[in-house]
Amino acid sequence: PCDLTGWWENDLGSRMHVLEVDGEGNFSGEYHTAVSSTDKPIQPSPLVGSQHLDKDGQCTFGFTVNWKNFSDSTAVFVGQCFTGDKGDQVLQTSWLLREKVDSLPSDWKATR
Amino acid sequence: PCDLTGWWENDLGSRMHVLEVDGEGNFSGEYHTAVSSTDKPIQPSPLVGSQHLDKDGQCTFGFTVNWKNFSDSTAVFVGQCFTGDKGDQVLQTSWLLREKVDSLPSDWKATR
Amino acid sequence: PCDLTGWWENDLGSRMHVLEVDGEGNFSGEYHTAVSSTDKPIQPSPLVGSQHLDKDGQCTFGFTVNWKNFSDSTAVFVGQCFTGDKGDQVLQTSWLLREKVDSLPSDWKATR
Amino acid sequence: PCDLTGWWENDLGSRMHVLEVDGEGNFSGEYHTAVSSTDKPIQPSPLVGSQHLDKDGQCTFGFTVNWKNFSDSTAVFVGQCFTGDKGDQVLQTSWLLREKVDSLPSDWKATR
Repeated sequence: PCDLTGWWENDLGSRMHVLEVDGEGNFSGEYHTAVSSTDKPIQPSPLVGSQHLDKDGQCTFGFTVNWKNFSDSTAVFVGQCFTGDKGDQVLQTSWLLREKVDSLPSDWKATR
Repeated sequence: PCDLTGWWENDLGSRMHVLEVDGEGNFSGEYHTAVSSTDKPIQPSPLVGSQHLDKDGQCTFGFTVNWKNFSDSTAVFVGQCFTGDKGDQVLQTSWLLREKVDSLPSDWKATR
Repeated sequence: PCDLTGWWENDLGSRMHVLEVDGEGNFSGEYHTAVSSTDKPIQPSPLVGSQHLDKDGQCTFGFTVNWKNFSDSTAVFVGQCFTGDKGDQVLQTSWLLREKVDSLPSDWKATR
Repeated sequence: PCDLTGWWENDLGSRMHVLEVDGEGNFSGEYHTAVSSTDKPIQPSPLVGSQHLDKDGQCTFGFTVNWKNFSDSTAVFVGQCFTGDKGDQVLQTSWLLREKVDSLPSDWKATR
């Protein structure tokens, strides 16, 4: 089964550390992003999320990263754990990044 | 300031209940979806997420819903809280729904 | 059946004019956006797209808007035509906006 | 400058053939998808789109694929052309796939 606990790195060089996944599938951790849409220095950022605990282990999961240490924005990731050809585990994820906007009329452009 | 604690309802009739937001901005709760992409009976589903705690209160937030009670899928929502014309609070969100797929070659169609 | 030919307006006040849809479902027209992510004056922008020509008329369609008159970006819209309660026709669409970025490492943030 | 004219292949093995891009940036062509969300045999599908014609050539573009030959759905792609390390040209794209749904209440799940 795929256990999210531990360190993961993506193609852009961002890394995340997932602490222990509890019996409900909940977890917390820290996200070290390699890229940012702001000019402020990047800081490690807390994440919280939830994982399915399937028997076959190719489970789906999701988590939220709160960039409060250097940005007004929030990101969410959703994905699935796959077992690769060599028995290694690969996470495939999609994400949305929400930036804070001033007012409702600007809402249309807040998410990428 | 916008406090996510409490009940919220969206245009589709889905409702969510957010329990107390803690000092770090973390929260948990329950999502009662009105719509589903599976045929199994819908069940209330646990959610965990995180909110910015800005002074002006029009904060961004994100959360994960684990549909484990009736589906192999996971959803993430990201959004911002706005104060409407009448002083009411409105959440604007975007979401991604990840469905479990059998193998990596099917990954391209797993997220909507 | 749903004929895209004519004028349409969305919730944000953007309007589009679709010229005649040909026998293959192809069409061109002009998009008058009410919102923009640049500071330059908004200009009417050319669009080209394609529509299914189904018997029941609730067809899907897609089109590309080239913002070349005031921006380096491109948008695509995809949607479906529905007949509303009062016999009126409603277009439901989703969109992606691609902004030009300097280099591949910035590609991750180019689309919203 | 990046000329879209010609054959392109993506990571999934889908190929597209773009015919001549005209002076306005408009083009048509054919998309040969390697993947499908339907069970019907895949057929080559017509595409129409539009490209910016920038001096530096790292232009954005978009196009619509009409899957009418085997499906009720429509896809849109939006992206940018980059010049790679070896002088080769690389297209980075994002896409949305719209499937036909029966009625407005199912609209929420129509796009992936």
